Amino acid sequence: MPEYILAKHLSKHLNEEVILKGWVYNIRKSGKIWFLVFRDGTEFVQCVVLMNEVSGEVFELKTTLTQESSVMIRGIVQEAPRQENGIEILVKDIEVIHIAEEYPIALKEHGVDFLLDNRHLWLRSRQPYAIMKVRAEVEQACRDFFNERDFTLVDSPMFTPNAAEGSTTLFETQYFDRKAYLTQSGQLYSEAAIMALNRTYCFGPCFRAEKSKTRRHLTEFWMVEPEMAFFDIHDDMALAEEFVEYLVQRALKNCRRELEILERDISKLEAVKRPFPRITYDDAIAVLKRKGFDIAWGDDLGAPHEPAVSEDYDRPVMIWRWPAASKAFYMKRDPEDERYVMGVDVIAPEGHGEIIGGSQREEDIKVLLERIDREQLPVDDFQWFLDIRRYGSVPHSGFGLGLERTVGWICGTHHIRECIPWPRTMARLKP
Amino acid sequence: MPEYILAKHLSKHLNEEVILKGWVYNIRKSGKIWFLVFRDGTEFVQCVVLMNEVSGEVFELKTTLTQESSVMIRGIVQEAPRQENGIEILVKDIEVIHIAEEYPIALKEHGVDFLLDNRHLWLRSRQPYAIMKVRAEVEQACRDFFNERDFTLVDSPMFTPNAAEGSTTLFETQYFDRKAYLTQSGQLYSEAAIMALNRTYCFGPCFRAEKSKTRRHLTEFWMVEPEMAFFDIHDDMALAEEFVEYLVQRALKNCRRELEILERDISKLEAVKRPFPRITYDDAIAVLKRKGFDIAWGDDLGAPHEPAVSEDYDRPVMIWRWPAASKAFYMKRDPEDERYVMGVDVIAPEGHGEIIGGSQREEDIKVLLERIDREQLPVDDFQWFLDIRRYGSVPHSGFGLGLERTVGWICGTHHIRECIPWPRTMARLKP
Repeated sequence: MPEYILAKHLSKHLNEEVILKGWVYNIRKSGKIWFLVFRDGTEFVQCVVLMNEVSGEVFELKTTLTQESSVMIRGIVQEAPRQENGIEILVKDIEVIHIAEEYPIALKEHGVDFLLDNRHLWLRSRQPYAIMKVRAEVEQACRDFFNERDFTLVDSPMFTPNAAEGSTTLFETQYFDRKAYLTQSGQLYSEAAIMALNRTYCFGPCFRAEKSKTRRHLTEFWMVEPEMAFFDIHDDMALAEEFVEYLVQRALKNCRRELEILERDISKLEAVKRPFPRITYDDAIAVLKRKGFDIAWGDDLGAPHEPAVSEDYDRPVMIWRWPAASKAFYMKRDPEDERYVMGVDVIAPEGHGEIIGGSQREEDIKVLLERIDREQLPVDDFQWFLDIRRYGSVPHSGFGLGLERTVGWICGTHHIRECIPWPRTMARLKP
Repeated sequence: MPEYILAKHLSKHLNEEVILKGWVYNIRKSGKIWFLVFRDGTEFVQCVVLMNEVSGEVFELKTTLTQESSVMIRGIVQEAPRQENGIEILVKDIEVIHIAEEYPIALKEHGVDFLLDNRHLWLRSRQPYAIMKVRAEVEQACRDFFNERDFTLVDSPMFTPNAAEGSTTLFETQYFDRKAYLTQSGQLYSEAAIMALNRTYCFGPCFRAEKSKTRRHLTEFWMVEPEMAFFDIHDDMALAEEFVEYLVQRALKNCRRELEILERDISKLEAVKRPFPRITYDDAIAVLKRKGFDIAWGDDLGAPHEPAVSEDYDRPVMIWRWPAASKAFYMKRDPEDERYVMGVDVIAPEGHGEIIGGSQREEDIKVLLERIDREQLPVDDFQWFLDIRRYGSVPHSGFGLGLERTVGWICGTHHIRECIPWPRTMARLKP
């Protein structure tokens, strides 16, 4: 019995007879020969069935095998320069495992709602498959990047005890006899963790009950959040820049095949090299005014502004030094001008918008208490967070990178719901 | 200016002058010399302050530096065979960053409730610190194991649309105008994903609203769940066994220092080598009866039974072939005797209990529909799951490993709440 192998390893078995197990992606017939495009979830490969190479019974499978039927194929691995992956299988035998009922997703165009309703099947198609492979590679790249740089993974909690920042976008859960809230960010917990472990990251699901229907919002998304003791805003920006370059270059290196399937313009990704341009918020406002936007100092930058700023660059642009009033209470004030905080947003090119938000954190308990008071936040809920500044406070910084937005940019995907296996939006909770 | 380095890298800088940044863990005074146990979250190191090596001001810091004050230390790295890590620092200068208020956690015994209330500070202590390091290593080991074996990470959703299995242990959330439920397992989603990607794993938080107060329960825990197309129960057990051996041996290799801090008996972990004993459920019942337990065929095995079975072995024991009635509807029936299903539990030694539950999955839609009907489950909610059996059904298997239970076993921790950074139990939702 020949060896059962995964299709991704076929090139190591040239001219050998092997067993493959997987599914029928497509069939093309042509007289004494037919072609079965086979997929096993690790690669797509063309299998050639010749009348004089197989039994009559196997040859006749061309009429009974339906799309997505599962099969075991025995055949010889051959070079085939005209095939995408340079390989085809000369079939010796096919054993049917299961004949699929009529498959709802044909190899033609469907509406996106239909495809999302059938997400459990749609994942088998080439493009979703390729995006999932890129996503998995980017996730591991995130971990490798931080692991190689002396960071310790510290998972933040999903259940949080109070709606401390008073947000209306929190999901609320009955937690025995209390209420709990689903996390929007692990940052506050990471700020405590770095006092124990110096450099940490958390990487898990985050939740936002935003009633937003844009192509850039999910109610459930994944975020990686590094936090670093003894880093100021400049160290923070340098790390963010190195990180983004690393993710893109690693996808380019390890996901060529997937980016081809997605017809991604590789040259746009190849340009993503340090240094990234760094402009202040004030610079960005000046640019936007020059481009005709009706915007005033102090306004936050939204969806229309980000592409207008980033279109001048072939790589991500870092916008830093923001008005304090537009940013969260924990950001460190600029010691030279307290109207500003040491925050930074990283905007991806090609209109993909913000992928990173970060800042140096305020380490002075007096300044922090002032801001909590001014913003009328419930100070008791923050006592544990304030403890970080009571017992050996140190300068520190961090940022968060949205996984789906980053994968969407790398894959050139219009809507980020395609960049998570099981998208959840205001309108969608199934399957 | 000497280089700023992390303490974990000190051994690469022997006899060099370096800068360290971190916290005062402890101070011991002795006339013309004092000792500062320094930590920076990457290592603990003894710093020696000699009267004739530093300024008078720095020498007098012995009276003002409090526990957990943050400092920058300049000094020379010296060999010190009597120190745990073989190194000490001859201090040249100390710059104070922040003098800590009186620290609530002294280097003495505290009650566990007090420590958990101060989890954000307790993480700085040696034992919690060491457990967090082991946890991070085990998490990366999980990922490396599956990445190296052709698995693709496919994150399962946290929000699920219905309480399909009718469980009373689901957390419910208001999801705009509907209800959503927090996931208990990614398995059903992974079963769909492997039809697209062959071998997948998910690794994320899971939630159980169990009113249980045992030392083995958390409401929020992490689980890694591999799922494999074309694997039967024997392939599944072989993979589980290889996986557990890998995790333990990797912790032994990379976490020696942490296991020393935890005073873990290393020899117990060194014994965890394949093959693991495999016994059937029937064997386990026979053993329990022989040991005097009042148990009948068909009963589930609980907390008292697991240690009674596992105490006969120096490594994990795999209990397989369970009564169908005691296990979930999706497990594959034994074709030779339909009173049994092809499920497996892996029980850790030393009384640490179940760490893995897995099974071959039922791939025959008729059998699955029968079980859904018999258990009066809402069949409409499972239509997408049944689709997996309609379109190219294949034999497949998988399992789930509980991260905190595994880390608890490796670290020799009594209560698994110490094995997650921010434990959530029925009684605890803070900090």
